[in-house]
Amino acid sequence: MTTSASPSRSPYDLPDVSELVVGVLGGTGPQGRGLAYRLARAGQRVVIGSRSAERAEQAAAEIGLGVRGADNAATAAQSDLVIVAVPWEGHAELLTALRAELAGKIVVDCVNPLGFDKQGAYALKPEEGSAAQQAAALLPESRVTAAFHHLSAVLLQDPEVDEIDIDVFVLGDERAATDAVQALTNRMSGMRGVFAGRLRNAHQVESLVANLISVNRRYKAHAGLRITDV
Amino acid sequence: MTTSASPSRSPYDLPDVSELVVGVLGGTGPQGRGLAYRLARAGQRVVIGSRSAERAEQAAAEIGLGVRGADNAATAAQSDLVIVAVPWEGHAELLTALRAELAGKIVVDCVNPLGFDKQGAYALKPEEGSAAQQAAALLPESRVTAAFHHLSAVLLQDPEVDEIDIDVFVLGDERAATDAVQALTNRMSGMRGVFAGRLRNAHQVESLVANLISVNRRYKAHAGLRITDV
Repeated sequence: MTTSASPSRSPYDLPDVSELVVGVLGGTGPQGRGLAYRLARAGQRVVIGSRSAERAEQAAAEIGLGVRGADNAATAAQSDLVIVAVPWEGHAELLTALRAELAGKIVVDCVNPLGFDKQGAYALKPEEGSAAQQAAALLPESRVTAAFHHLSAVLLQDPEVDEIDIDVFVLGDERAATDAVQALTNRMSGMRGVFAGRLRNAHQVESLVANLISVNRRYKAHAGLRITDV
Repeated sequence: MTTSASPSRSPYDLPDVSELVVGVLGGTGPQGRGLAYRLARAGQRVVIGSRSAERAEQAAAEIGLGVRGADNAATAAQSDLVIVAVPWEGHAELLTALRAELAGKIVVDCVNPLGFDKQGAYALKPEEGSAAQQAAALLPESRVTAAFHHLSAVLLQDPEVDEIDIDVFVLGDERAATDAVQALTNRMSGMRGVFAGRLRNAHQVESLVANLISVNRRYKAHAGLRITDV
């Protein structure tokens, strides 16, 4: 994971990430809690982060499976790979505050900037192009990737659901970082991480959640995506 | 197809569109030609449009299966449903010129505004928000939808490929129009039309082609999408 891979290497040849400690910022929200649960269930060591260490510890205890809780800064400091699962409104402020703790680490942004009105959801366009590009701009010393945008928090958190039927779009500009995130995704039952481009193409992946919300409403579903021929 | 459906109607209850004449503007390009071929193969009556009637007639003859060719204006005039498969560069000019011929008709925009540089493809952001919204702005008397963005022109045109393994995202603000486009999609072997939101959420669906190009490059694939739980 420390050297950049040759572009001709097989896309299915991914590193072993089973020993990485994964932090989940915003880990007390539905998406973060769901991801923490799935990762812990797959045997990963997980730390949940929140503004309040107490709330994080409580959520961790509810999940069980060895998950720990800490405030966001302590979570970032003690993790090898950090998932950012906070609401878009608090995204820039949180990352600005954690720049030092996140330096040198793989950061996985899974934030979807969306607005809502009576016609449903619509995409917001961050000034930097996307939430992931905002993260990259605010964290120049981190290895920023984007993934986990299209997961249903309901399915992630449901202990009766053994497999999540979804391909995760993994984006980033550094091959070793996206390879690690794909490998981490593959550890969660049913899920597969597929490389889907550079960070400059993250906006449409983030925004596609608005379309999945329309699908869910029309078909009364928890829609996900699979990529064919891969 | 003339009355607006109740929102509570089953999303799987779609109209019979087998008698519609389908026009394909830009039908001599790879995407348009591929769609014309698939539709004709499914038994649909198809007219290919091009700036030059001669080129359109030649492409139609090459496809066979009863496909006819005409210039773009004549194609629009004699079709019930018109697919817009022209390059983004000529999109606004063509639709402006065909406003009268397209009035009252279902228009299916499948244009992907993309730029390319040495790092690959990236999304262009039309002033109106998306190619589909530009079409809606230029064709106020038409029933504008968006679909067919993620299809591989290579697979569409390959006579050895019997089924295209893909779900087509169908977008639009009028239920009867999107229902008809879904039904048309379902006629093509392997393909399924899934309602995926209003036109204001078309940009990310159009732009996602940039990500699929990255997938294709990394995995040497012709990637498509399937929507799970639907």
